[in-house]
Amino acid sequence: MSQLNQVDAFLEQNRQRHLSDLCEFLRIKSVSARSEFKKEVESAAQWVLAWFQRLGLKSELIATQKHPIVVAETPAVPGKPTVLVYGHYDVQPTEPDHEWISGPFEPTIRDGNVYARGATDDKGQMLTHLISTEAWIRTMDRLPLQLKFVIEGEEEVGSESLYTYLPTHAKELAADVVVISDSCQFAPGIPAITYGLRGIAYFEVKLDGPKQDLHSGTFGGAVTNPANALARILTALRDESGKVLVPGFYDDVVPLTDQERKQFAGLPFDETHFRRQLGVEALSGETGFTTLERRWARPTCDINGLTSGYQGEGAKTVLPAWASAKFSFRLVPRQDPQKIAQSLRTMLQSITPKGIRLTLTEHHGAPGVVVPLESPFMAAASKAIERGFGKPPVFIREGGSIPIVTAFKEKLGIDTLLLGWGLDDDNTHSPNEKFSLTDFHRGARASAHLWQELSELSPSRKG
Amino acid sequence: MSQLNQVDAFLEQNRQRHLSDLCEFLRIKSVSARSEFKKEVESAAQWVLAWFQRLGLKSELIATQKHPIVVAETPAVPGKPTVLVYGHYDVQPTEPDHEWISGPFEPTIRDGNVYARGATDDKGQMLTHLISTEAWIRTMDRLPLQLKFVIEGEEEVGSESLYTYLPTHAKELAADVVVISDSCQFAPGIPAITYGLRGIAYFEVKLDGPKQDLHSGTFGGAVTNPANALARILTALRDESGKVLVPGFYDDVVPLTDQERKQFAGLPFDETHFRRQLGVEALSGETGFTTLERRWARPTCDINGLTSGYQGEGAKTVLPAWASAKFSFRLVPRQDPQKIAQSLRTMLQSITPKGIRLTLTEHHGAPGVVVPLESPFMAAASKAIERGFGKPPVFIREGGSIPIVTAFKEKLGIDTLLLGWGLDDDNTHSPNEKFSLTDFHRGARASAHLWQELSELSPSRKG
Repeated sequence: MSQLNQVDAFLEQNRQRHLSDLCEFLRIKSVSARSEFKKEVESAAQWVLAWFQRLGLKSELIATQKHPIVVAETPAVPGKPTVLVYGHYDVQPTEPDHEWISGPFEPTIRDGNVYARGATDDKGQMLTHLISTEAWIRTMDRLPLQLKFVIEGEEEVGSESLYTYLPTHAKELAADVVVISDSCQFAPGIPAITYGLRGIAYFEVKLDGPKQDLHSGTFGGAVTNPANALARILTALRDESGKVLVPGFYDDVVPLTDQERKQFAGLPFDETHFRRQLGVEALSGETGFTTLERRWARPTCDINGLTSGYQGEGAKTVLPAWASAKFSFRLVPRQDPQKIAQSLRTMLQSITPKGIRLTLTEHHGAPGVVVPLESPFMAAASKAIERGFGKPPVFIREGGSIPIVTAFKEKLGIDTLLLGWGLDDDNTHSPNEKFSLTDFHRGARASAHLWQELSELSPSRKG
Repeated sequence: MSQLNQVDAFLEQNRQRHLSDLCEFLRIKSVSARSEFKKEVESAAQWVLAWFQRLGLKSELIATQKHPIVVAETPAVPGKPTVLVYGHYDVQPTEPDHEWISGPFEPTIRDGNVYARGATDDKGQMLTHLISTEAWIRTMDRLPLQLKFVIEGEEEVGSESLYTYLPTHAKELAADVVVISDSCQFAPGIPAITYGLRGIAYFEVKLDGPKQDLHSGTFGGAVTNPANALARILTALRDESGKVLVPGFYDDVVPLTDQERKQFAGLPFDETHFRRQLGVEALSGETGFTTLERRWARPTCDINGLTSGYQGEGAKTVLPAWASAKFSFRLVPRQDPQKIAQSLRTMLQSITPKGIRLTLTEHHGAPGVVVPLESPFMAAASKAIERGFGKPPVFIREGGSIPIVTAFKEKLGIDTLLLGWGLDDDNTHSPNEKFSLTDFHRGARASAHLWQELSELSPSRKG
């Protein structure tokens, strides 16, 4: 029996116990947002710590201002890469509770799924990596490479403690690649690796006109109305199709390769279903790109909020003293949020009409990230998933940012493999969160194979 | 001694008493907006009624759903016109009370002004017509024409009762012209007749996109963002200078005559002072027109309110489900609010992007009004003001609407003479409202002369 056959066999034999472990973990009410659950959050951290301790790993509970971070590591394996596994043991609040069919902290099996808060986000998915580690240690006594774990308890409330911890512990966390399972397959039975995320540059603009709201009858026509000016300025940012008009905006965009476009086009994406799901009569966006391309790999400009003048019921004849908008650009790899902020500022100043004072606030920026499809890590992950799920993954992107992925890249210089075992109807953040038991076990098996596949690569890490 | 000399002499001899009358009237806390002042509001109505009764006028207190309307009339004078005098005895709330130098209901004389809530708006100005009526009756025993009075107590809260009363009492109120003193001189020592008001067409547009707010990362680029669409639609309504782009918008506009433009240009209007007063670095608006022309006699399009998405502190990456705006056009004479609403609706439907559902609500519309400068009423009022103020009035317009003027025109078919004795720094609706005593007495004298001047015209009224 080869090493991996033994690991696989262990996983097969321990399915029932691993399900029990999962249910035990899910019973802990680790709602990070609510102070009344502080002790339960701590219990969940202890539960994770105990797992590592049982396996004899060097492990530790790091106290923070809010909830502890669990760190652990297996011994270094000379000549082999080090993998940093990230996950989180905290969960979203459960409200509205009356919509849950079974209690959010009473894990219940129905139709091959386990229902509970945290089932997929992220206790269930994260646990697959703890289980695979156990399987290797119980059968082989050791991992084929070094694993480091950083499991936090504030993912659902902004990860503030982890962001403080990361840059000051870069050495302890040094690794060749990060692995996170906290996302979705492309569709049921179609496992996926998310290899790209869009970045963001988020702004707020405020236009000040007259020193107070004016009567639109007495004064309309005499001064520039800040709300009218705002509409014009926001309209100048993009054309009707969505193409951004900020000078230089597209200069650094890495275009999709033919291979990527072909691959996206090959995905079973049902536009009609998607459109109905969103409740719109038509999809729309930048000319010359498919919906998936536009969502995943093209930059955008969206207004996120508008405020001006009278917003109550009925009519008030006011010429508002000011108008403001929140708006953001989604960025794709190589676009630099700082450079874009600068170009935007110059542009806005040049188009601000007389009689208006413009204030531009930069809220936050993060570049897009992409792991090259030809990366050996990617190939290794793909093979591992094929072993776990019985079919190779598709390569997808995600239109949003995952701030922790950006942080790993920016603070530690490490790329992340986003290996999602969930499904997009898993009700994360909603009542009746679930996780497919089949995918739970497939995920654990894929994880076990991942350590083997990655161990066959040479470490890329410097220093 | 001619008739008018006797009237003038009476006014002169009774200055002190009339000031006492004014102060007595101002002590009544007739705040129509506050139910706790209901009795005081009624007292003010009774005070007005008593004035008419003392003079032997046919008069009556009309009970309404809210505050009474005082109506009164002098006997008809065959072959002479009938004048309807409108005014209001209710006042604005007084808050913030601590900013008043003397109590809002403790009329106090400082620097030739009487300070109190209602001093100029409208107790003081309205009283000039009651005083002139008294002067004619006490000296001549009769008026040289028929006067009808309609003095309401809800002007500061929307005049609902009067709007109910007007159309059902058109016959009782029938007159050749309406006189209202509830406005301002052009500047101190420059009395004015306001001969034109802009109309209005007020709308609310709501754009619905996806059925709920979406994550701007995951979905940005896939669907039309209602806030982006709103900015574009609002921008399409007017060009950068303020010229309205709704088809046919200018078709019915009555252009300013050369005489009017010349006259406006001759007014001592200090642009720098005006600009500083508003707190803007520059004035702006439709090309080819002066600031006064733009405010008084050119139509506009102003956004009055904007609402969409996230409006709180910081950033939220939301692609809003909907966006809405309140906006209104100021109209000039001959523009038809209905016709404009129709053209607007057609235009908006044609530019609404796919994936967006547009709802356009018409809030209210009123045409602009203008009394021809060559009207004999205008000439009569001009002469009367010259007698009262020692110099002829300038002819100005006002950019806002005065709904009651529109109602008199639309429901009763009568033009209004807006004869303002106030000043634009009288602090109406603010603490330390005041009225110049000199102008109070000048106004009464002008009013007394107005009845004489108007009596020399033949009645225009039909039926």
